[in-house]
Amino acid sequence: MRGAVVETGDVAVLQAMLDAEAALTRAQAALRLVPAEAAEAVSAVARAAAFALPDLVTRARSGGNPVIPLVEDLRRAAGPYGEYVHRGATSQDIVDTALMLVARRTLGPVLADLERVVAGLTALAAEHRDTPMAARTLTQQAVPTTFGLKAAGWLTLAAAAHERLTTARRALPAQLGGAAGTLAAFRPGTGTDEDGVFRPCTGTDEEAVEEPVEVALRLPGRFAAELGLAEPVLPWHVLRTPVADLAGALAFTAGALGKLAADVLVLSRTEIGELSEGVGGGSSSMPHKHNPVRATMIAAAARQAPPLAGILYASLVAEDERPAGAWHAEWQPLREALRLVAGAARDAAELVADLRVHPDRMRANLAVPGDTAPAPALVDRALTHHQDKAPH
Amino acid sequence: MRGAVVETGDVAVLQAMLDAEAALTRAQAALRLVPAEAAEAVSAVARAAAFALPDLVTRARSGGNPVIPLVEDLRRAAGPYGEYVHRGATSQDIVDTALMLVARRTLGPVLADLERVVAGLTALAAEHRDTPMAARTLTQQAVPTTFGLKAAGWLTLAAAAHERLTTARRALPAQLGGAAGTLAAFRPGTGTDEDGVFRPCTGTDEEAVEEPVEVALRLPGRFAAELGLAEPVLPWHVLRTPVADLAGALAFTAGALGKLAADVLVLSRTEIGELSEGVGGGSSSMPHKHNPVRATMIAAAARQAPPLAGILYASLVAEDERPAGAWHAEWQPLREALRLVAGAARDAAELVADLRVHPDRMRANLAVPGDTAPAPALVDRALTHHQDKAPH
Amino acid sequence: MRGAVVETGDVAVLQAMLDAEAALTRAQAALRLVPAEAAEAVSAVARAAAFALPDLVTRARSGGNPVIPLVEDLRRAAGPYGEYVHRGATSQDIVDTALMLVARRTLGPVLADLERVVAGLTALAAEHRDTPMAARTLTQQAVPTTFGLKAAGWLTLAAAAHERLTTARRALPAQLGGAAGTLAAFRPGTGTDEDGVFRPCTGTDEEAVEEPVEVALRLPGRFAAELGLAEPVLPWHVLRTPVADLAGALAFTAGALGKLAADVLVLSRTEIGELSEGVGGGSSSMPHKHNPVRATMIAAAARQAPPLAGILYASLVAEDERPAGAWHAEWQPLREALRLVAGAARDAAELVADLRVHPDRMRANLAVPGDTAPAPALVDRALTHHQDKAPH
Amino acid sequence: MRGAVVETGDVAVLQAMLDAEAALTRAQAALRLVPAEAAEAVSAVARAAAFALPDLVTRARSGGNPVIPLVEDLRRAAGPYGEYVHRGATSQDIVDTALMLVARRTLGPVLADLERVVAGLTALAAEHRDTPMAARTLTQQAVPTTFGLKAAGWLTLAAAAHERLTTARRALPAQLGGAAGTLAAFRPGTGTDEDGVFRPCTGTDEEAVEEPVEVALRLPGRFAAELGLAEPVLPWHVLRTPVADLAGALAFTAGALGKLAADVLVLSRTEIGELSEGVGGGSSSMPHKHNPVRATMIAAAARQAPPLAGILYASLVAEDERPAGAWHAEWQPLREALRLVAGAARDAAELVADLRVHPDRMRANLAVPGDTAPAPALVDRALTHHQDKAPH
Repeated sequence: MRGAVVETGDVAVLQAMLDAEAALTRAQAALRLVPAEAAEAVSAVARAAAFALPDLVTRARSGGNPVIPLVEDLRRAAGPYGEYVHRGATSQDIVDTALMLVARRTLGPVLADLERVVAGLTALAAEHRDTPMAARTLTQQAVPTTFGLKAAGWLTLAAAAHERLTTARRALPAQLGGAAGTLAAFRPGTGTDEDGVFRPCTGTDEEAVEEPVEVALRLPGRFAAELGLAEPVLPWHVLRTPVADLAGALAFTAGALGKLAADVLVLSRTEIGELSEGVGGGSSSMPHKHNPVRATMIAAAARQAPPLAGILYASLVAEDERPAGAWHAEWQPLREALRLVAGAARDAAELVADLRVHPDRMRANLAVPGDTAPAPALVDRALTHHQDKAPH
Repeated sequence: MRGAVVETGDVAVLQAMLDAEAALTRAQAALRLVPAEAAEAVSAVARAAAFALPDLVTRARSGGNPVIPLVEDLRRAAGPYGEYVHRGATSQDIVDTALMLVARRTLGPVLADLERVVAGLTALAAEHRDTPMAARTLTQQAVPTTFGLKAAGWLTLAAAAHERLTTARRALPAQLGGAAGTLAAFRPGTGTDEDGVFRPCTGTDEEAVEEPVEVALRLPGRFAAELGLAEPVLPWHVLRTPVADLAGALAFTAGALGKLAADVLVLSRTEIGELSEGVGGGSSSMPHKHNPVRATMIAAAARQAPPLAGILYASLVAEDERPAGAWHAEWQPLREALRLVAGAARDAAELVADLRVHPDRMRANLAVPGDTAPAPALVDRALTHHQDKAPH
Repeated sequence: MRGAVVETGDVAVLQAMLDAEAALTRAQAALRLVPAEAAEAVSAVARAAAFALPDLVTRARSGGNPVIPLVEDLRRAAGPYGEYVHRGATSQDIVDTALMLVARRTLGPVLADLERVVAGLTALAAEHRDTPMAARTLTQQAVPTTFGLKAAGWLTLAAAAHERLTTARRALPAQLGGAAGTLAAFRPGTGTDEDGVFRPCTGTDEEAVEEPVEVALRLPGRFAAELGLAEPVLPWHVLRTPVADLAGALAFTAGALGKLAADVLVLSRTEIGELSEGVGGGSSSMPHKHNPVRATMIAAAARQAPPLAGILYASLVAEDERPAGAWHAEWQPLREALRLVAGAARDAAELVADLRVHPDRMRANLAVPGDTAPAPALVDRALTHHQDKAPH
Repeated sequence: MRGAVVETGDVAVLQAMLDAEAALTRAQAALRLVPAEAAEAVSAVARAAAFALPDLVTRARSGGNPVIPLVEDLRRAAGPYGEYVHRGATSQDIVDTALMLVARRTLGPVLADLERVVAGLTALAAEHRDTPMAARTLTQQAVPTTFGLKAAGWLTLAAAAHERLTTARRALPAQLGGAAGTLAAFRPGTGTDEDGVFRPCTGTDEEAVEEPVEVALRLPGRFAAELGLAEPVLPWHVLRTPVADLAGALAFTAGALGKLAADVLVLSRTEIGELSEGVGGGSSSMPHKHNPVRATMIAAAARQAPPLAGILYASLVAEDERPAGAWHAEWQPLREALRLVAGAARDAAELVADLRVHPDRMRANLAVPGDTAPAPALVDRALTHHQDKAPH
């Protein structure tokens, strides 16, 4: 079962595709490529609930992507304005833009969760700046450290994840290039209909005062602005920098939280007992047990995200103006990586908020001699470092 | 959108978990651990449609797996027999068994599709045993070969995939071990209720003539037989051979079909034109185009399956009697790998059935001198080799 | 530093390539395609120590593989018989055959090490059949089990790894196909020289009594026999079943041993202390520490092998008669996976041989009530199961 | 054979470890923790050629890392100053610092090669701004584009790779934390000798005017400055941000160049012939062939880098103060990813410098109607965008 992260589900992707189609008509209306009424009409009917998802999925199979049947249905829904739907666009414009929207929408709550993680860890590091515990290397107790330093380390990673995801989110671009990424079909006076015949856009070309090429070049920026996405320098059908950068930031985040989880799992072992999750998970066979469920789920996400990111990095190798496979291989791993990171961030926020620290047990377990300096001073340094650039 | 392979969807997994719970009561009834009426009652209500999937998903979050809320609901549905649901079992028994059932059910159609691929390629290899075409190495024409030899190579891979998946499918085991894989809670006279208290199974222990330990040891075999799965030597909660073997077979199959797809993609290029998909895919921007959509979707699957298999191989490293993450990391990649391979096998079956071969173009493109021998003789060898062990 | 496994080093690969070239001349001599003296002469000079490895590596760059400069040097070394070197072969014939030889040679000691692991674990399982310890799930103590059952589980995995590697090793084929895998250039009366002109093999064609095609078809079997490798049904330049199967067996083995290592790492933690490596590793900063170094190195190998296997599975997708990249991408990951598994098997053999079990600590740690049945009976079942098919 | 990139070879790593040890003594001398003469003496003998690499590799096995035997040998080489070698440091300080040095040294030439790629592609894009060719989607000709736009796309990716690697390189930090990353052992008045006994640094503590903790906190910055590496906020033994960021930048670069290679491979196919590598690779069986060898080697690298990066991202999950496996699993994949990217960048620089463009063939192949606008205007936009931030 895929869990409760609705932002990456099929309905969310469908809505994002509809949002992209509607934004395209609005952007084209703003540049007088289509009538303003068409943009309003399409925007009004672009609601996922009005479309039959299972039927779209079935019809998507023969063409290899869901946009072809979706455009058919959206044209029908738009009635007399149907001809203005998807003008000049290619399926990839819609799918890529929709996935960037899904990413943007998913990452909002993720960043908020990471801010809770950062705030919680900042407090833990300060509170336990001097709390002694055993440092452990290769599973063996080594020399003393403080729990504050451990928490400060987690903080450093969580803050770095927040920074990387913020950067990646800001850069998420809209996609608009038309059939082969040249913007050719967006020039006033051109456009494809269902039969593939190029024909003039009724009622718009005489009003156009700009050069057709200039209008086409301005369209992507306008389209991006409608959706709150970044404007790309070039159509990026086969220049997958945004996807690769997002993949890296997601893999980093999963791993950064995975380090926190790994430590919680070790330190909440029955025989160690230095930490425990405030709200332990149940067991269907042993209801008395309190399992570190959140750390477990984060750990599971951290095992899956790097290979998924690997698929996305590999899709940089996209031959031609649209590759036969590399692009299609991105869709599910990207959504899955987003889903996993969203779950991990939520779990981490709750884990940190509820974490129970047992300093007595830390002291009792400590079998190696020595004082903890300069660990507390390192905590101060980490806190100072992150204070200045903490997310608000 | 995840496409039409319903066997790996959430409802299918839910039904498989219910099937596992019901089979457990039947197996326990057969060994007189629970009343026969309980088994009948639980089996009667174990229908996915009667359970609220979104609610289960939400409630699954706190315990880290969906079995805890499912058992609650199933107990309620079973009314007076509710207490006999999930007796002695642990969540992993149900999830693992359910995923093995999902795999078994998904692989049935996959094997049938691969048989169509093998049959189609056998015919193509025979028909084009002597059809000359250019062999190409590092993208350049090399020396002549025949299309029959190319098809025979594809056949060899498809037959090997069929063989590996058949072996892996036969070995898919039921899982039954109880809390820590020792079968302890399945001994007559024990059992856990919702409070975690061990108590006697009413009305069964006095009738038991066997040793409690013997009864517990016999239960997994009986359970497996109820489900058509293999009996494991040991509970395999942390001995993940079946999952790893399945992962390997799935990655192999995706890659084997991916080779076929890669060649179809090259040979159906506009400038080469030696093959074409009988039913080309449409384009939302260029309706006149006929894209090699099936080969594209197979190629996309082949890019995703190896890293997903990698996640599953990595989950062999499962510490303790149930790992905190490695097991949970298997669920989605296993389902996704099954889904991808199921789609690829279906696409390959259709692709091969409809493939159009253009011998004239092959001959016209052939720019390198030489005759084709002994390529036709190699075709004969391959066909003879696969004839004897062809799937029926 | 890559460690002491010399079987996968550059010198070993060079020797294997020379062995392949020499075996080719012997196989061709046996079929009267080249003079017997040529085979003897080439075999005599095919010693890695006589070739300048760094120079070969440098010269390999421009052609993309090391065979081209190696053949030049070997021809020079063979003096008057130089013209008989590499007759009809393509670089891939030599590189693939060499890597299969390297795999075969590496896996010999690996299988021996796994036999030591199996024997050691069999003894541990029997000895500790009834030794109680805590089963642990999601890091928490669950119910009692026995150490014997844990060891029996490790045994099951190690035996499965031995079985899979044995099967994969037996199937390792020689590669021989010539330029495009059609065997065309191995027909008597043909052959390529340095200028790419096909010309008769001096002194052999008049003696040939068989059909040229038949001779060419017999050559791969003869070649394989010279090297102790399997005879392939077809040239497998782009039918990479042997590499994929080997990849799967290696990933499985790394993971199977990784489970053993993961448990040793947990159980030898300072606070648990139920196991310890007999010969603990040192520390450069804390010489008093005894680290579980062997388990650590196995764990490191288990993290790397699955993605490396993923690269190899992905290379099944090999377009044309020789792919531009997929084949080249196999060389290093295959050697690295072999090296890692060889190291892990050696470490596991030593770890098991020296493992110190602390039953007192197991008993003292055991915080959960209950008896251990039927865990000992499961040990018996596992031992019986593996007895019959134990490697000798 | 691993090719000619010596920067990542065993000798380079050995030298980098020696550089780290020598820099540590110099940094400690600067803070009056050891005598200046000791720093000079150690620096003088820290030459890789003077150490027996194979012997070190063998002795590294028992402790799980090469620093333990290296320190022994370096102490011996330093004669009377041997006691000042590796003071307070842990093996990971040296290995991590050495690998960062190796990365820094490898990336210098890589960035230079990428600058050649960017310059070459800028010229190609400008020259072929208006050269018409077919855009191809899903292997089929779509609408016209220009070769300039294709080259501008490659440029965009190469420039992005340069930017990401430059950022990652600047951030490469020295590592210094001592046994458990607390810097405890670097306080004046402490230090470990070979017996693990803490003892005063002879002749230094009376002169120290600063607080011991302050001195320890200042040491990493001084150490980093000696090596030209960045100063870390905290010891990063288990905070693997630098390695993960580098991994992402390397995977990105391999993929970015892989896109260029993929297009070159398609367009240099015999039947397409729109591009060719100026210096084609030879063939051992068909000397007349000119293979796109550089594109092939880049493509091979692009298939390997993402899974290797995945291993490194996964190693973020590093439990405790030094993990048992995750750290060790970084060494080889990091070096291998560096080696692959270094090779790919060199190959790309040569490929672009020598690339032969065949506009006549592009025009002749163009089977689809339409003009190329606004493709040339997009070229202008891309060139303007990259001009401002071009690497110098």
